Amino acid sequence: MAKKVGFVTMGETEAKRGKIPEIGVGMLGYAFMGKAHSNACKKMPYIFWPPPAIPKLITIAGRAEARVAEAAQRYGYKSYSTDWHSMMDDARIELFDNAGPNNMHEEPCVAAAQAGKHILCEKPLARNAAEAKKMLEAVKKAGVKHMCGFNYRFAPAVRLAKELIDKGAIGQLYHFRAQYLQEWIVDPEFPLIWRLDEKVAGSGALGDFSHIIDLARFLVGEPKSVSALTKTFIKERPLPDKPDKRGKVTVDDAFEAIVEYENGAVGTLEGSRFCPGRKNYEYFEVNGAKGSIFWNLEKLDELDVYFDEERYMETKGFHKISATESYHPFYDKWWPQGHLLGWENTFVNQLHHFIDAIVNDKEVAPYGATFEDGYRAAVICDAILKSASLGKRMEIKY
Amino acid sequence: MAKKVGFVTMGETEAKRGKIPEIGVGMLGYAFMGKAHSNACKKMPYIFWPPPAIPKLITIAGRAEARVAEAAQRYGYKSYSTDWHSMMDDARIELFDNAGPNNMHEEPCVAAAQAGKHILCEKPLARNAAEAKKMLEAVKKAGVKHMCGFNYRFAPAVRLAKELIDKGAIGQLYHFRAQYLQEWIVDPEFPLIWRLDEKVAGSGALGDFSHIIDLARFLVGEPKSVSALTKTFIKERPLPDKPDKRGKVTVDDAFEAIVEYENGAVGTLEGSRFCPGRKNYEYFEVNGAKGSIFWNLEKLDELDVYFDEERYMETKGFHKISATESYHPFYDKWWPQGHLLGWENTFVNQLHHFIDAIVNDKEVAPYGATFEDGYRAAVICDAILKSASLGKRMEIKY
Amino acid sequence: MAKKVGFVTMGETEAKRGKIPEIGVGMLGYAFMGKAHSNACKKMPYIFWPPPAIPKLITIAGRAEARVAEAAQRYGYKSYSTDWHSMMDDARIELFDNAGPNNMHEEPCVAAAQAGKHILCEKPLARNAAEAKKMLEAVKKAGVKHMCGFNYRFAPAVRLAKELIDKGAIGQLYHFRAQYLQEWIVDPEFPLIWRLDEKVAGSGALGDFSHIIDLARFLVGEPKSVSALTKTFIKERPLPDKPDKRGKVTVDDAFEAIVEYENGAVGTLEGSRFCPGRKNYEYFEVNGAKGSIFWNLEKLDELDVYFDEERYMETKGFHKISATESYHPFYDKWWPQGHLLGWENTFVNQLHHFIDAIVNDKEVAPYGATFEDGYRAAVICDAILKSASLGKRMEIKY
Amino acid sequence: MAKKVGFVTMGETEAKRGKIPEIGVGMLGYAFMGKAHSNACKKMPYIFWPPPAIPKLITIAGRAEARVAEAAQRYGYKSYSTDWHSMMDDARIELFDNAGPNNMHEEPCVAAAQAGKHILCEKPLARNAAEAKKMLEAVKKAGVKHMCGFNYRFAPAVRLAKELIDKGAIGQLYHFRAQYLQEWIVDPEFPLIWRLDEKVAGSGALGDFSHIIDLARFLVGEPKSVSALTKTFIKERPLPDKPDKRGKVTVDDAFEAIVEYENGAVGTLEGSRFCPGRKNYEYFEVNGAKGSIFWNLEKLDELDVYFDEERYMETKGFHKISATESYHPFYDKWWPQGHLLGWENTFVNQLHHFIDAIVNDKEVAPYGATFEDGYRAAVICDAILKSASLGKRMEIKY
Repeated sequence: MAKKVGFVTMGETEAKRGKIPEIGVGMLGYAFMGKAHSNACKKMPYIFWPPPAIPKLITIAGRAEARVAEAAQRYGYKSYSTDWHSMMDDARIELFDNAGPNNMHEEPCVAAAQAGKHILCEKPLARNAAEAKKMLEAVKKAGVKHMCGFNYRFAPAVRLAKELIDKGAIGQLYHFRAQYLQEWIVDPEFPLIWRLDEKVAGSGALGDFSHIIDLARFLVGEPKSVSALTKTFIKERPLPDKPDKRGKVTVDDAFEAIVEYENGAVGTLEGSRFCPGRKNYEYFEVNGAKGSIFWNLEKLDELDVYFDEERYMETKGFHKISATESYHPFYDKWWPQGHLLGWENTFVNQLHHFIDAIVNDKEVAPYGATFEDGYRAAVICDAILKSASLGKRMEIKY
Repeated sequence: MAKKVGFVTMGETEAKRGKIPEIGVGMLGYAFMGKAHSNACKKMPYIFWPPPAIPKLITIAGRAEARVAEAAQRYGYKSYSTDWHSMMDDARIELFDNAGPNNMHEEPCVAAAQAGKHILCEKPLARNAAEAKKMLEAVKKAGVKHMCGFNYRFAPAVRLAKELIDKGAIGQLYHFRAQYLQEWIVDPEFPLIWRLDEKVAGSGALGDFSHIIDLARFLVGEPKSVSALTKTFIKERPLPDKPDKRGKVTVDDAFEAIVEYENGAVGTLEGSRFCPGRKNYEYFEVNGAKGSIFWNLEKLDELDVYFDEERYMETKGFHKISATESYHPFYDKWWPQGHLLGWENTFVNQLHHFIDAIVNDKEVAPYGATFEDGYRAAVICDAILKSASLGKRMEIKY
Repeated sequence: MAKKVGFVTMGETEAKRGKIPEIGVGMLGYAFMGKAHSNACKKMPYIFWPPPAIPKLITIAGRAEARVAEAAQRYGYKSYSTDWHSMMDDARIELFDNAGPNNMHEEPCVAAAQAGKHILCEKPLARNAAEAKKMLEAVKKAGVKHMCGFNYRFAPAVRLAKELIDKGAIGQLYHFRAQYLQEWIVDPEFPLIWRLDEKVAGSGALGDFSHIIDLARFLVGEPKSVSALTKTFIKERPLPDKPDKRGKVTVDDAFEAIVEYENGAVGTLEGSRFCPGRKNYEYFEVNGAKGSIFWNLEKLDELDVYFDEERYMETKGFHKISATESYHPFYDKWWPQGHLLGWENTFVNQLHHFIDAIVNDKEVAPYGATFEDGYRAAVICDAILKSASLGKRMEIKY
Repeated sequence: MAKKVGFVTMGETEAKRGKIPEIGVGMLGYAFMGKAHSNACKKMPYIFWPPPAIPKLITIAGRAEARVAEAAQRYGYKSYSTDWHSMMDDARIELFDNAGPNNMHEEPCVAAAQAGKHILCEKPLARNAAEAKKMLEAVKKAGVKHMCGFNYRFAPAVRLAKELIDKGAIGQLYHFRAQYLQEWIVDPEFPLIWRLDEKVAGSGALGDFSHIIDLARFLVGEPKSVSALTKTFIKERPLPDKPDKRGKVTVDDAFEAIVEYENGAVGTLEGSRFCPGRKNYEYFEVNGAKGSIFWNLEKLDELDVYFDEERYMETKGFHKISATESYHPFYDKWWPQGHLLGWENTFVNQLHHFIDAIVNDKEVAPYGATFEDGYRAAVICDAILKSASLGKRMEIKY
C-alpha cells in the first residue's frame, strides 16, 4: 500500500508479491552442483521477471548433517534432511531437483516421480542406459515434467547455433566434431574420488562429458553408429580417506569416438581429463554445405559462424559473434551487450525453461533436454564402451 | 533444532541464521545499475559464505512510482520510495547504495554521509572534480566508509594483474595503454538520452569510461600530465520524448589522451561509443622492463602475461591465463577452474569487499576504490577536457 | 677480382662462386607443387648462406609442352621435357625432385633410384603401401638419399614442438589429436579433378592430408591400431573436360580415425575437404603428463605450449610463442623476430636439409621424412581404409 | 628450339627469354633491408609471371668490402662496390634501390635522381622533412619514378582494407588507432647501435615505425593536427665497439600521438621498442559509421571486418578473413587459399608494382607510396617531435 508524504510516495512491497505463484523445491546435493542449482533457484525469479513462479526453497538433503545444515542456512532452505526419502512425502515440494552424484539419480528420481513431483536431474541421467530407462519410464508413467541437466543447451551462443542450424543457415550438415577436455586428474597422486569409481559414477570422462553427446543430438540429430576407444592412463590412485593405500580406477580417463549420424554427417567426440592447460574446454564445430559454426565453453558468450555466401565475396570469414545482444537468445533478460554471462547462468536459463514448462504446461523439448534425451545419451555412452571393448563399430539402438 | 526420525536427521534452518549479522541497504536507482547492485546484494551472502553480514534490502528509491514499486517487488526490497530523502532518516538503512545517474550522486551522497550512512556510489563519482571534492569531504567529515564503484578492480584477472605488478613480476613500468570502446550510439538517430546531456552526465565517453582512468591509477600509479582531444561526431540527436525534434549533444562522443605518469611510464587512454563491433571492449596493456600484461573485458576471466625470463628461452610467449583457479583472486568462493564468472559478479566481489570493510572496520583501499579514488579520476577527467579545449599538455594536480 | 679506384673498391662476383658446389636438379611437375619446389631451389642458396650446394636447374618435365616450356623459362631451367624418362640418362641431374601427381610417383622414382639419383618425392609417397614399398626398396638398393616431402616438419614451430617433446618438456604423452580441414570441394559442381580419382590419387582427403599421419609419427611415435570411418558426401561430379557429364568420385571426401600409439597415447586424426571457412586448417594438439602443445598451420609461426609447472603458480597458461627468434629452429637464417615466414619457406628449409644430407653425407632422419616414413604413412592410410570398410579396429603392421 | 625424340619433346629454355625485358638494379645496403630487397628482386619475376621486366642484379654497394663482396656472391650481383657513387655513372643501372641506413638516403637518392635512375628508397624516406623535401624535389625535377618502401601497403590484407574503405564498406570514418610495438631494446645493456643515434637515424621508434603514419594517410587521409609525447627510457647505453663505455641515446624509445584528420576522424598512433612480448606488433583499427576493420602484422594474412548490416542481424560479428583467396589482392600470383604469405613477400608485391610503373609508365600512387608520401610522413614525424617538445597541439602543414 502506497502512501504519499508530501511529494514522496512510499510503499510496502509485500502486498503485490502474492500475484506471482510459488513452486516448492526440494534439493538433493549441496556440493558443486547443489550450489549451482540453488543459485539458479535464487536468481531466476528476478532475472526472468516476472517469473512463471518463484522457487520456494523447502528442503535440501545430503548425507553429512553438519554440511547439509550449513547449506540450508547458506542458500535459505527452510529445512534440511540427511535422507532424501523425507522429501518424498512433503506436499510442499513440487519440484525435485536432483544435484546428487550419479548413483543417487535413479532411486530418488523414480521415487519422486511416483510421488508426483516434477524432476530436474543432473547429467548424466544415470550410470547406464538400463537405469536411465527405468527413470524415463517412471516419469512417463507419473505424467510429471522431467528435465535432464544438459545445461549448455541454455548458453545463449549454443541456442543461437541451434536456431541457425534449424533455419538452414549453414545448409545440410556434413561434420560435427566435439571435444571436452580437462586436466584435473593428470597428477597420479590425485585421489580416487567417487567420479573415478564405476559403482558411483557409471563411467568416467564419458558420462561426465556426455554434454557433447547431448549437443551432438541437439544440433545434428540421431547417431547411427559409433566406433570408439577408451583409456585409463593411471590404473591405481590413493584412497581419499587412506592416502597411503591405493585403489583401482574403474572408469575411463579418456574416450575417443567416431560417430556417423542418421543424416549422413560424420565426426568425432573426444573427452579427457588428461589435457594440461585445458581448464574446461568444451568445443564443438559443425560444418555444413553452406557454412560452419564453432563454439567453445571457455568463451561462453561467443559464437563463430562462417557463411559461404556474403554481400562481398572478399569478406567471407568466420563471424565472431558476441551473442550478448538483446536480440540473442535469453539476453533480453540479462545485461546490455558485451556484459558477459557467467557459466552459472546457463542453469538460471535452464531452470526458467523448466518452471515455465511446469507452470504453463509447455513441452520441455526440443530446447530443453528431457529424460528421453538423458536416456538416449546413456544408450550412446553404453555403445561407446561396448565398441571400445570389442574393437567394432556399433549401431545405436534406443 | 535438528530432530532424528529413524536414520533421518531433519532440521529447521532458521535457528542458526541469527549468528550472522545483517546490514540494512537503501538503494537509489532501479535501472541497469540498480539491477546490477541489487543482484550483488542478493548473491554476495551465499557466495562469500559465511558473509561478514547479510544485506537486508530495506528500500529502493526512484522517480517513477510504478517502476520503482515493481523493482522493489522484483528484488525483494521491503519498501520503495519516489524520493531518496526518505531513506536518510531511516535508521534501518546503514549502507546507502547509489546506483542513480551522475547528477544524482553529489546531493544524495552528501546527505547520506551527514546521516552517518556508509556509501557505495557508482562511477563516475560525480560530474566533475568540484562535485567529487564535496562528496569526498562529506564522507571524511562523517567518518563513514565509502567506495566508488570502479568494479573492474574486482575482476579476478584484473586483481591478478595488480598483484603481479605489485610483486615486481614485470619490473619497472614503461607503458600503459587502455581503450574502452563501444558502438551503441553510432546511429545518428539514437536519441538524446541523459548520458548525452552534460547537465546530467557531466561528460560522455570520458566519465562513463573513467574505468580505464581508475585502472591506470590502480595498476600504474599517479599521472603527471595529460594531452588530450575530445570529439562529438553527431552534434544533434532526436529528443527521447519528441523524436521529431532534435537537441544538442553536449558531451564528448570520444576522447583520446596521452598520459605521462609520475614513475616515468607513458601511454594512451581512449574511449569511444563510435566503434562498430566493439560491444564492450575494455582493454589495457602494461609493459614493464621484465614483462607485459594485457586484459580485455570481453574475455573477462583471462589474463595474458609475458615474462622476459622463462625456464626455456625458446618458450617465451604470452601466457594466456584462465584466472579461474582456486588460487586466483576471489575464485575460491566461486566455481571450479574454467567455469567462468560473468560480468555481474565483479559487483558481488566488490560488495563483499565493502561490507567486510564496514563490518570488520577494514580499509577499503588499496584494492577497493574510495571516494578519494573517485575524486582523483574526476580531476583527471577535468584535465583531459581542459587539455582538449586548450590544445596544451596539462599537469595533474589533486 | 677487386680493383681499387680512389677510395672505391669494386669487384666482380663470379670469381668466388666456384668455391660452392652445385647440384643438378631435374624436376617432375610444373603446377602447384612444381612451383613450390622450384621456388625452394631458387631461394635456398641465398637464405642458407653459404649453402651446402647451389641447385642448378637442369630440366623440368611435364606432359603439356607449352606449359612445361613456359615453366622452364619462368623458373630458369636450362631445358624442358615432355617425358620424364629423358632425365634419367642425364648425368647432369643428380637430384630428382618429384612434384608430380600421386600416380607419377612410383615409376619415375624407381627409375631415378636405378639411375643413381637422389630423390625428393612429394607426399603421399605413393597411392598405397604396396607402391610405396617398391619405392623404398629401390632407394635402399640404390643407396641414394631419399626424402618424402612432409614439409610441415620444417615449419619452425613444428620443429620446436618436436624438440620440446624430445627433451621431455611435457612429459609422458597421453593424447595426440590432429585435424586437417579444407573447404574447396564443398560445392557439388566442383569438377572431378585427378585428386578425386582413385586411379590417380590413391585416396582423397586421406592421402592428401597424410601430413597429420606423419606428424603423429614424428611427434608421438608409432601407432599400434586404428579405428576409422571414411565418407564420400558427393558421389558424382561434373567431368572437367565435359561439364555436362558426371563421373563417379572414387575417393574419400573425409576420414575420421581413432589412433592408439605404442607408447599408450590415444587420439584422433581427421581430414575433410567439406569444412566451409577452413582454408587450410592443419591443427594438432599433444597432451602430456607435464604439459600440452598445440599448433595450427593457419598461424604458421606460432606455437602454444602449456607447462604444469611455472615460476608463479598463478601464471600458468598456454604460452603463445612466436617461433621467430634467432634461437628458434631455422630462424637464424631468415629474418628478425616477428617477421613471419610464409608457407612456401617450409620447402626451403626442407630442401636445405636434404641437400645438406646429400652433399655432406648426413642422415635425412630423424628430422626429415625418408621414404621409410612415406611408406609407413601409406601403411597407416591403408589400415584406415580397411578399418573403415570392415568396421573393425586394425593393428598397424609395417 | 624444341626437338622431338620419339614421343618426347625436349627444348632449350634460353631462346624465349629474350622476349621479357630486363631492368638493371643497383642496390645500396646488404644487411637486413638489403637482404629483403634482394630477395624481392630475385622472386618477383617468377611469382609475377610474366613480369613487366626481370631485375638484373648489377651492383650492390656497402662500406665493408668483405661483407659486400660476400653479399654480391650470395644474391648474384655481377659486381660490388664499397662506394655507392660508382653506381651513378653505370648506365646498366636503371633502378637504384636504396636499402641503406637513414643517413644514407638523401645524398645517394638525390644523386641517383640526377643520374636519371628510378628510385626505390626504404622508409623513413629521410631523417627529417627538410631532407625528404630535397629528395622529393630531385625526383620531380629528374622526372624519374620514385617509391618509398612503405611495404605494408602491399600486404594483401592491408590492400583489402584499403579497397573496402574506398568503396564505402564501413562508411564515414570516425577513428584510426594504430600501434607499432617491439621489444628489442628493453635490455639496458643493449648497445648504442645506429638506430639509436639521431645523426644516423633522425629519430627512433618514430621514424622506424612511421609505417603506421603512412598507413594512417593511406587508409584515412590527411592529418590535420597532432598532439604528442616522446620518451627515452634508457638515456645511455654501451657503445657497440667499446662495451665498457657508454654513449647517449639521442632518439625516442617511444612516441605517443593523438591525431585529428581533415575528414573529422580522430585517433592515436603509438610506437615503442619497450614492449616485452611484442615481437613485431603492428596493429591498426579503423571505425566507421557502418563498420570497423582491424589488422595485425603478427597475423599478416588476416583481416577482421565488422559490418553493422548483415543478412541475419544475430550473426553480426567481426569477420576473420583469411585474405588468401585468388580473389584477394595479389594472391592470384601466389599460392592456393590458406597457404600463407610471409613478411618478405610484401616486398615482392611492392617491387612488382614499382617495376610495372617504370616499364609501363604507370603511376606509383595511390597504391604505392611515392617520395611525396615519404615526405609527408616526415613532416608528420617532425610535427610529433615538436608537439612533444612544446606540449602543444601542432597543425600539419606540408
